[in-house]
Amino acid sequence: MAEPKQERALKTRGDILYAAASAFDELGYKGASMREIMRRAGVTLGAVYFHFENKEALARAVILAQPQELVPRLHSEGIQRLVDFSLVWAHQLNVNPLMRAAVRLAVEQQAYGIGNDVSYGDFETLFEGWLKEAEDKGELAPGVDPAIVAEFLVGAFTGIQHYAHLAGSTDTLPERVIRMWRLLLPGVAKPKVAERIELDPVRGE
Amino acid sequence: MAEPKQERALKTRGDILYAAASAFDELGYKGASMREIMRRAGVTLGAVYFHFENKEALARAVILAQPQELVPRLHSEGIQRLVDFSLVWAHQLNVNPLMRAAVRLAVEQQAYGIGNDVSYGDFETLFEGWLKEAEDKGELAPGVDPAIVAEFLVGAFTGIQHYAHLAGSTDTLPERVIRMWRLLLPGVAKPKVAERIELDPVRGE
Repeated sequence: MAEPKQERALKTRGDILYAAASAFDELGYKGASMREIMRRAGVTLGAVYFHFENKEALARAVILAQPQELVPRLHSEGIQRLVDFSLVWAHQLNVNPLMRAAVRLAVEQQAYGIGNDVSYGDFETLFEGWLKEAEDKGELAPGVDPAIVAEFLVGAFTGIQHYAHLAGSTDTLPERVIRMWRLLLPGVAKPKVAERIELDPVRGE
Repeated sequence: MAEPKQERALKTRGDILYAAASAFDELGYKGASMREIMRRAGVTLGAVYFHFENKEALARAVILAQPQELVPRLHSEGIQRLVDFSLVWAHQLNVNPLMRAAVRLAVEQQAYGIGNDVSYGDFETLFEGWLKEAEDKGELAPGVDPAIVAEFLVGAFTGIQHYAHLAGSTDTLPERVIRMWRLLLPGVAKPKVAERIELDPVRGE
């Protein structure tokens, strides 16, 4: 069992992370000050700096927290797990400030030089693992390389999200993701597997 | 025939546009000043402001000039035209400063509030037209909607480019685009059409 002191520290760290996410989500990286994040977390500025060296470290922690927000919600295997991941992701992007902030920061990172492609690499590794599992289960179409599909999916999800956001319709993301799978499944999955994959937005909620 | 005066004005406008592109490409939107663009174009600051109201107008013109840099290089029809477009685009992004600047600006536009999704919409309209042509030629797989594929492709290309850029390997773009088509063609084209589509990076050069 963790000591109460450690527990408290973990809770404070989490509070600061979510406060930072809500500030980044609403104000962007540039607009969110450490003081504003402190105010939203209801802690002292000293506590903020105890847990995070600077705003860049906070932004990086928000970006890296994405998988923890998504993966525990998944309960399927193989290709269906990948599909469910994309549906959960599309839904959480609309309702979860941490996810919204992470995406805004990932897009802004080129402009402000925050972090690098590390969160993308995390997702690619996750996807590749699930696709290898799908391969072992005999779900993949002949000649499909898990690594190549994983790399493509990271790019495709990023772009679909970016385009939906620019078009002012992030709420269309679940539908856009389902359309992508309809186009992609014939090239990725064996026909019998593709047939039984469920593409229902409710799976992401 | 255009009058020499008009011709000269058009040439100056083009010089300024390419000077702006090279400055945006190297320095980003924030880093490129109107004075720097003037210096690179070899014109007066007055000439810059005669053709472009402000830096935002220049950025928007660079973004909107993309199709003119790409479409005249295409010589095929139907799905092959879309494939060739993506190969030309992937190649030009590595060699053409205007294309590089346009992409950097499109990614930065969320951070600096330049423009909107207008260039994406232009590409979507182009793609949809070519896909309708492919539909008329009987190339599309049953049930494939040109509008849905066009929308997906704009997002996918954006994301693939963004991810390649973050991974520091824009030179892998032609290969990434070809991998995408291998995954996508079975869901988009009739099998006989998919078979004869040429996916050679040389087609983009």
